[in-house]
Amino acid sequence: MQLHSMWENYPELKKDLAEVLMTIEKNIQIRDKRVEENVKMLIHAGGKLLRPAFALLSAKLGPDYDRERAISVAAALEVLHMATLIHDDVVDESKLRRGQPTINSKYGNHYAVYTGDYLFTICFKILSKHSDSISNIEFSSKNIEKILMGELDQMRMRYNLDVSVKEYLTRISGKTAQLFALSCYSGATASKAPRTLAVKAWNIGHYLGMAFQIIDDVLDYTSTDTGLGKPVMNDVLQGVYSLPLIYAMRGRKAEFGPLLLKKEAMTDADLAELIRLIDDYHGVEQAFDLARKYTKKAQKEIAKLPAGAYRDQLSKLTDEILDRQI
Amino acid sequence: MQLHSMWENYPELKKDLAEVLMTIEKNIQIRDKRVEENVKMLIHAGGKLLRPAFALLSAKLGPDYDRERAISVAAALEVLHMATLIHDDVVDESKLRRGQPTINSKYGNHYAVYTGDYLFTICFKILSKHSDSISNIEFSSKNIEKILMGELDQMRMRYNLDVSVKEYLTRISGKTAQLFALSCYSGATASKAPRTLAVKAWNIGHYLGMAFQIIDDVLDYTSTDTGLGKPVMNDVLQGVYSLPLIYAMRGRKAEFGPLLLKKEAMTDADLAELIRLIDDYHGVEQAFDLARKYTKKAQKEIAKLPAGAYRDQLSKLTDEILDRQI
Repeated sequence: MQLHSMWENYPELKKDLAEVLMTIEKNIQIRDKRVEENVKMLIHAGGKLLRPAFALLSAKLGPDYDRERAISVAAALEVLHMATLIHDDVVDESKLRRGQPTINSKYGNHYAVYTGDYLFTICFKILSKHSDSISNIEFSSKNIEKILMGELDQMRMRYNLDVSVKEYLTRISGKTAQLFALSCYSGATASKAPRTLAVKAWNIGHYLGMAFQIIDDVLDYTSTDTGLGKPVMNDVLQGVYSLPLIYAMRGRKAEFGPLLLKKEAMTDADLAELIRLIDDYHGVEQAFDLARKYTKKAQKEIAKLPAGAYRDQLSKLTDEILDRQI
Repeated sequence: MQLHSMWENYPELKKDLAEVLMTIEKNIQIRDKRVEENVKMLIHAGGKLLRPAFALLSAKLGPDYDRERAISVAAALEVLHMATLIHDDVVDESKLRRGQPTINSKYGNHYAVYTGDYLFTICFKILSKHSDSISNIEFSSKNIEKILMGELDQMRMRYNLDVSVKEYLTRISGKTAQLFALSCYSGATASKAPRTLAVKAWNIGHYLGMAFQIIDDVLDYTSTDTGLGKPVMNDVLQGVYSLPLIYAMRGRKAEFGPLLLKKEAMTDADLAELIRLIDDYHGVEQAFDLARKYTKKAQKEIAKLPAGAYRDQLSKLTDEILDRQI
């Protein structure tokens, strides 16, 4: 079991995250051992585990910290994340994820669709086993509903040259920030944090998630190696236009249109030209500035939390999201 | 809103089922109105609504019948069924469902995968809103886990000429009977039926589900029109071998093998030849006999229920499953 190297600086969290992975592994039992093997490879392929990490840290907020419960809730959130990744790979026809062949590429969409469904259910199973109130489950399912809305929105906006910054933010709020927010909130309620604190945790998670996704989208344009475990510029080819492009394209649709509307037929030269245009119009810088604004908002909320190791680590992690050491 | 004509003989149930459809409709709000429209078309396309019907009838078993709660639980189960149908259509690349174009054929796998996921979540949302205990949700999610296991098993067994009757029964138990059982069980617990009664309801649902799926599979070989809203013999072409074929093929692998292993390349003449072979070896009769055994088991359990309209209607519906008036 290999945890991402970023956790070396967080020894307690690292131990808990290892336990999260074991909990997930214990809960996944698929009769088809080849598929089980593949799911387990995905678990151990060195995902960053940010969502469970934020859940675990937030579990220190309440008066009734229970390590086993915190770990279970964190595991449920990572399982949910895995389910969406597997379905994303079906939708995007991705061949690689975290440097490993995807389930769809190895066994076909058949397996990938049902395996994702199976993981969705495992998430609810773990959540219901460790929640002490129905209202938590109801809250979670409402959140997950919004996450899927975000995915559907992203589909709807494909190849839309008129997509606005606001529409982009709504989309990533649903697709990403919602799950970060739910992670922080669920961690807090797992230790019976009072509602005001849990809502603060929710907000922090939301801001962190927004920053994280913007940086992720920036890297799609700036990263030149395959260290990300996925093809660079994949989004553009799929018609998903993200913040650096949206900023650069504002008021310049005529300039970008002919290039983008080649869709999947865009050549490497077209992509290089696109990157040059985005660069000329400072798309990446503007996107990065907005990500910085979100981390600042998160830090402002974090500063209001009760002092303690939890707060310090959360603050440190927040800075690391922006520097993308993580 | 058009309910299946079979419900004409059950006026109270018909009213409640209409309410179930309205509850589902109310809970489905997708920003992309085209997709929402398509999901709503699926709701109203005249599905048989057997699962919610069994849930509603079973809700009369307990001492604390609450119509709104019963309808909500019934709605959640139909939504779950719809989610699996939409994902089944992705996996099977089906073009039609209930006589309407499928979401995958109309909008692509993208939408269909996420729409199914969305409906899964709506199911849990409705369930958690109307359950009064976490253990019910936990029970439901464990059941849904088994349903998806059944789907994955079905994938694993594709194009396997050695598939046994036992393996077939395990598969349909997960894929179909589990949801019928959960419907009866959830209905019963929604009215706070004592555990012994709820377990009886579970067993009845299981037997009904087994009979229903066997008959459904028989119809795949015997139905000559497209009244089913799906292509006949679809299963065989996809490598999914069901009971009439399994019975006919027992000890005759050499005779069936060359035909079946043409896989998707099987011609209409091949299919006709296959039907002739199944007919010669009485595959359909044997399958039908087993379905009859399951309805008999169901009737035996139904007879032990407290007397009342609930019991009479359940018994009548059980006979109708076998006659496939429904």
